[in-house]
Amino acid sequence: MIIIVKPETKKERVNDLIHWIESQNLRTHLSTGDYSTIIGVIGDTSKLDSDLIRGLDIVENVKRVSEPYKSANRKFHPQDSVIQVGEDKRLVGGGHFAMIAGPCSVESEEQIISVARSVKAAGATMLRGGAFKPRTSPYAFQGLKADGIELLVKAKQATGLPIVTEIMNANHLPLFEDVDVIQVGARNMQNFELLKELGRTRKPILLKRGLANTLQELLMSAEYIMAGGNENVILCERGIRTFETATRNTLDLSAVAALHEMTHLPVIVDPSHATGVARYVKPMAMAAAACGADGLIIEVHNDPPHALCDGAQSLRPEQFVEVAKAVNAIRATVAGLDEQ
Amino acid sequence: MIIIVKPETKKERVNDLIHWIESQNLRTHLSTGDYSTIIGVIGDTSKLDSDLIRGLDIVENVKRVSEPYKSANRKFHPQDSVIQVGEDKRLVGGGHFAMIAGPCSVESEEQIISVARSVKAAGATMLRGGAFKPRTSPYAFQGLKADGIELLVKAKQATGLPIVTEIMNANHLPLFEDVDVIQVGARNMQNFELLKELGRTRKPILLKRGLANTLQELLMSAEYIMAGGNENVILCERGIRTFETATRNTLDLSAVAALHEMTHLPVIVDPSHATGVARYVKPMAMAAAACGADGLIIEVHNDPPHALCDGAQSLRPEQFVEVAKAVNAIRATVAGLDEQ
Amino acid sequence: MIIIVKPETKKERVNDLIHWIESQNLRTHLSTGDYSTIIGVIGDTSKLDSDLIRGLDIVENVKRVSEPYKSANRKFHPQDSVIQVGEDKRLVGGGHFAMIAGPCSVESEEQIISVARSVKAAGATMLRGGAFKPRTSPYAFQGLKADGIELLVKAKQATGLPIVTEIMNANHLPLFEDVDVIQVGARNMQNFELLKELGRTRKPILLKRGLANTLQELLMSAEYIMAGGNENVILCERGIRTFETATRNTLDLSAVAALHEMTHLPVIVDPSHATGVARYVKPMAMAAAACGADGLIIEVHNDPPHALCDGAQSLRPEQFVEVAKAVNAIRATVAGLDEQ
Amino acid sequence: MIIIVKPETKKERVNDLIHWIESQNLRTHLSTGDYSTIIGVIGDTSKLDSDLIRGLDIVENVKRVSEPYKSANRKFHPQDSVIQVGEDKRLVGGGHFAMIAGPCSVESEEQIISVARSVKAAGATMLRGGAFKPRTSPYAFQGLKADGIELLVKAKQATGLPIVTEIMNANHLPLFEDVDVIQVGARNMQNFELLKELGRTRKPILLKRGLANTLQELLMSAEYIMAGGNENVILCERGIRTFETATRNTLDLSAVAALHEMTHLPVIVDPSHATGVARYVKPMAMAAAACGADGLIIEVHNDPPHALCDGAQSLRPEQFVEVAKAVNAIRATVAGLDEQ
Repeated sequence: MIIIVKPETKKERVNDLIHWIESQNLRTHLSTGDYSTIIGVIGDTSKLDSDLIRGLDIVENVKRVSEPYKSANRKFHPQDSVIQVGEDKRLVGGGHFAMIAGPCSVESEEQIISVARSVKAAGATMLRGGAFKPRTSPYAFQGLKADGIELLVKAKQATGLPIVTEIMNANHLPLFEDVDVIQVGARNMQNFELLKELGRTRKPILLKRGLANTLQELLMSAEYIMAGGNENVILCERGIRTFETATRNTLDLSAVAALHEMTHLPVIVDPSHATGVARYVKPMAMAAAACGADGLIIEVHNDPPHALCDGAQSLRPEQFVEVAKAVNAIRATVAGLDEQ
Repeated sequence: MIIIVKPETKKERVNDLIHWIESQNLRTHLSTGDYSTIIGVIGDTSKLDSDLIRGLDIVENVKRVSEPYKSANRKFHPQDSVIQVGEDKRLVGGGHFAMIAGPCSVESEEQIISVARSVKAAGATMLRGGAFKPRTSPYAFQGLKADGIELLVKAKQATGLPIVTEIMNANHLPLFEDVDVIQVGARNMQNFELLKELGRTRKPILLKRGLANTLQELLMSAEYIMAGGNENVILCERGIRTFETATRNTLDLSAVAALHEMTHLPVIVDPSHATGVARYVKPMAMAAAACGADGLIIEVHNDPPHALCDGAQSLRPEQFVEVAKAVNAIRATVAGLDEQ
Repeated sequence: MIIIVKPETKKERVNDLIHWIESQNLRTHLSTGDYSTIIGVIGDTSKLDSDLIRGLDIVENVKRVSEPYKSANRKFHPQDSVIQVGEDKRLVGGGHFAMIAGPCSVESEEQIISVARSVKAAGATMLRGGAFKPRTSPYAFQGLKADGIELLVKAKQATGLPIVTEIMNANHLPLFEDVDVIQVGARNMQNFELLKELGRTRKPILLKRGLANTLQELLMSAEYIMAGGNENVILCERGIRTFETATRNTLDLSAVAALHEMTHLPVIVDPSHATGVARYVKPMAMAAAACGADGLIIEVHNDPPHALCDGAQSLRPEQFVEVAKAVNAIRATVAGLDEQ
Repeated sequence: MIIIVKPETKKERVNDLIHWIESQNLRTHLSTGDYSTIIGVIGDTSKLDSDLIRGLDIVENVKRVSEPYKSANRKFHPQDSVIQVGEDKRLVGGGHFAMIAGPCSVESEEQIISVARSVKAAGATMLRGGAFKPRTSPYAFQGLKADGIELLVKAKQATGLPIVTEIMNANHLPLFEDVDVIQVGARNMQNFELLKELGRTRKPILLKRGLANTLQELLMSAEYIMAGGNENVILCERGIRTFETATRNTLDLSAVAALHEMTHLPVIVDPSHATGVARYVKPMAMAAAACGADGLIIEVHNDPPHALCDGAQSLRPEQFVEVAKAVNAIRATVAGLDEQ
């Protein structure tokens, strides 16, 4: 951590600050320049509150040199984390690819089982489906809730696919007992109370990046879960909000490369929500596979035009077959390159 | 609502869609152009799901003409809403100005009562103070929680100022019984489960705009609360996230003018969080008063350099006296202009 | 075009507007709703000024249904454009891939010829190099200017690679006679005076997307060039400015898919400027190839740590060999899928 | 400047870097920590290229402590700059307020003289009017060009108001001889070739902030003009591009406070282009005056519904009278507070 002291600060006041920092078991180096005095803080500064120091009247600015996330940091955990999902321990990360597919919303037993069978046949490794739906409008369909989870469990029994579904309220946790991966949606990425509760479980958590959150904030939210003892976090890039309106959000694929450098956690990509357009899902899924994503989560519906939500971005099962084939071909090519 | 049908769609399929829409008690008008066919939907379309229609394979695009928010819409409620706060029914909105001040975090009985007395003397009409603190890092100070609320209540008893504090978890609601205004923070603006619970109370809710949320989304979140029966919503502009780094966020003051047109709900401004810099609070508070804000919420701390959070943006009580004086002078000038 | 008329507008005034529109050789359809009256305008509205109509006091809003770009619009030109570059007519677009590589700045004859030979050996089809450099700071190195172009021409003579370099001032056009592709940088995407001059040439123009420009604006800038008679435009996605700071810009790869739908012009990707980090160039180049980009433009320098600008994002020649190999493998895979 | 060296870098290589820096007449301080080694660079680093250093393979990151702009920097020029405009030397900055008003485009002699008389009567101190118009579409009205400037000069002769108009091409400079303030539009803020040419004149330059440019970049563009010897730069905040669509752009009024701290140059505000909505111009003009702007530039048209461009944001002369009155009242109040 670098502390830039205001020009013309009295020497004693700088010394007071240095003494206080050193009392926190940290070491300091002092540089005195023409226009500014700089204190370098050395040691584990991750628990030091930079806002507190920035608030001191003698301080002009504070810059972190090391990252404020620790459990998620690749520096302290160089190997890729591999997350185990479901009773038969399917792996995600470290070369193991997750192909998660299913409808935006669970609508009926027939629908979810039919979609589950289709996506399994096409090579999906997990089934997604919304039971509790975060909708911008209170007047829009909010999901089948507990009934939706029951139907997902039936689809798991019918197909053997582990199930992924979103939680919106920590009080609903008892309903998620048979859910294999609990998803935290983009709008809840900084719902810290929810993250803390999920840190007390040992379920894999699929943590989606918020619409306007930096990669560092995403890792701090992962840190909330991991600080509670649950290290089973899968990160998900799903598009960020920008000025562009040609796509619903802007898919930030360089986040995959950057996150792989910053953290050991697996990173998957959601091209359906990122683009909001079914026609763009296939090229973006291929791109995600090409740049090293550890998985994909894709919306597939047996009847997209009549889907109760987000029909615009859902693929039909036969389109998903094509996507899965293309993604596998890209992955095989990438694997071949890595082996050389 | 305008539905743009894809070129070369068969006439029968367009007719099917028209019949379905008309079966929802809406009327339609059909325009057939060279490059596109357009269906205009007439009537109350606020409960019609535009995503559903966009998902139909014959539909190119859907554009809303009327707003999807209803209870918050000024079109159906032309007069300003005036919210009553606390036992002595202090008013906010419709010409009544809220001057809310206090520390980022409640730290001790002495601190909160001392700040409360200072801000009251300077003209504050309510006391703010954080008990539950949403922090990006799990390692940062998270607030005194229930104890913090108790201390706020003591400060209310000592000064008569109504108290405003943030809720992060609907399960904490019983602790907020003596809180006069419940704040929903920017990161929870789309925590729909929390909003629904607050809709069941009758407490005034201070709803802060999310970092990347449009004004329409802010009103849809207000709608969640109002749809539950609680019409006591105060909106708060607190800066949005942009590429600029000279200020922590970008204060969007034109939101005050735009919201006053869109909705009858009062709109207040938080210059402390918007800028993140104590020196900019005074000019931005003056600007907010000049453009018609219904109130301000400002961070004041008796000892900003040692504040446990956000010291950088807190004013000292004597600085707040200057801000309050300047804001009152601007307000008097604006009132004088309106009377002419 | 859809014109939404303000509620309670007198009928005669609406009729006046309709007559005026029809006098422009356009047809109209009128829909009268409970809350709004809507005029649909049918015909070629691309030359109608929507701002002018929006400014009328009886108009609430105007929404375009058809796109304001015409020459670049795929609707009126369904086949991919194929651009011919250089004396030996290398093709870009419609399945022909451009692999453009070279240093940020031309520094010396030895440097540019050495890099040109390296990238040619690795499979590059064109050489890039900056002679006129747009730099944020007036104190930073601004390029070798005319001398830089001369050195590029020497590198072309030595290797046979067509050359691509940026223009910043239409007055410099005579210097670009032997340049094969003229680049318009992101900061000049809306330098309309420059675009008009380039429309008078017949050289291929590489038009980079501005930092905060929508895809529609990019196409309107292409339209400036094409309206002058020069249809040889190659579009380039090079990252947009967002709140994220982990990468210099945010590479918007879904722009490739969206642009391929909107326009017949080729679309290439610049992963070097988009990410600003050499380590991320390879995964992003692979992703671009996977989602159907018509080419790449990549910074390669023989000695990146000592490059006079942007060393951080430049690859060494031996790294570029790896990138080119990976991109070719991905392209072969994609081509195989398309053939099936 | 702070240079963070990569962990495990060999000591000799760090020493090489230190020697090179010291050879540039700068001093260094070295701090060696557990996770990183830091070199502090002391002295005038404004001409040191941080990208060059960031590109070195032993460097992890570079952070500037001091600003890269020098002529515009308030640190080296604590007093407000006061710019003299026109033959009668009207002042802008340092307490002197510029009230610039006029139409988006000059349309005819009658129009521009009529508007000039109206705005002068209402208290405008300068006349604005577009002769060369930057339009997104090549098919939209591009201005009367040289004829427009002639008409502006006639309006100056008729009213005595100095005139402000936009330049788009340095080749047009001879046409601007009788123009009092030359405006650089947002899209040309980083047209460095144009800025350099304007640096060779001694005319006051009104430099508008680009749609996605930081305040630091705005100052670097001012620096381009000032480095050429022209210190007469007036900065203009005119809204930035964000995700919000309720206003055309997002007016960043905290830029006024931040710029006043960073630079001695005057800062004016354009509420017309920032909001794009005539109804919001008055509240935003009042807010700008309240937070200390040194002037306003406002679109006024005698017949906004028929204006050839941007009618939506133009005020009628009688509305401008009200705006001017309100702004003057706010300014008087602010001046009264400052005197106390």
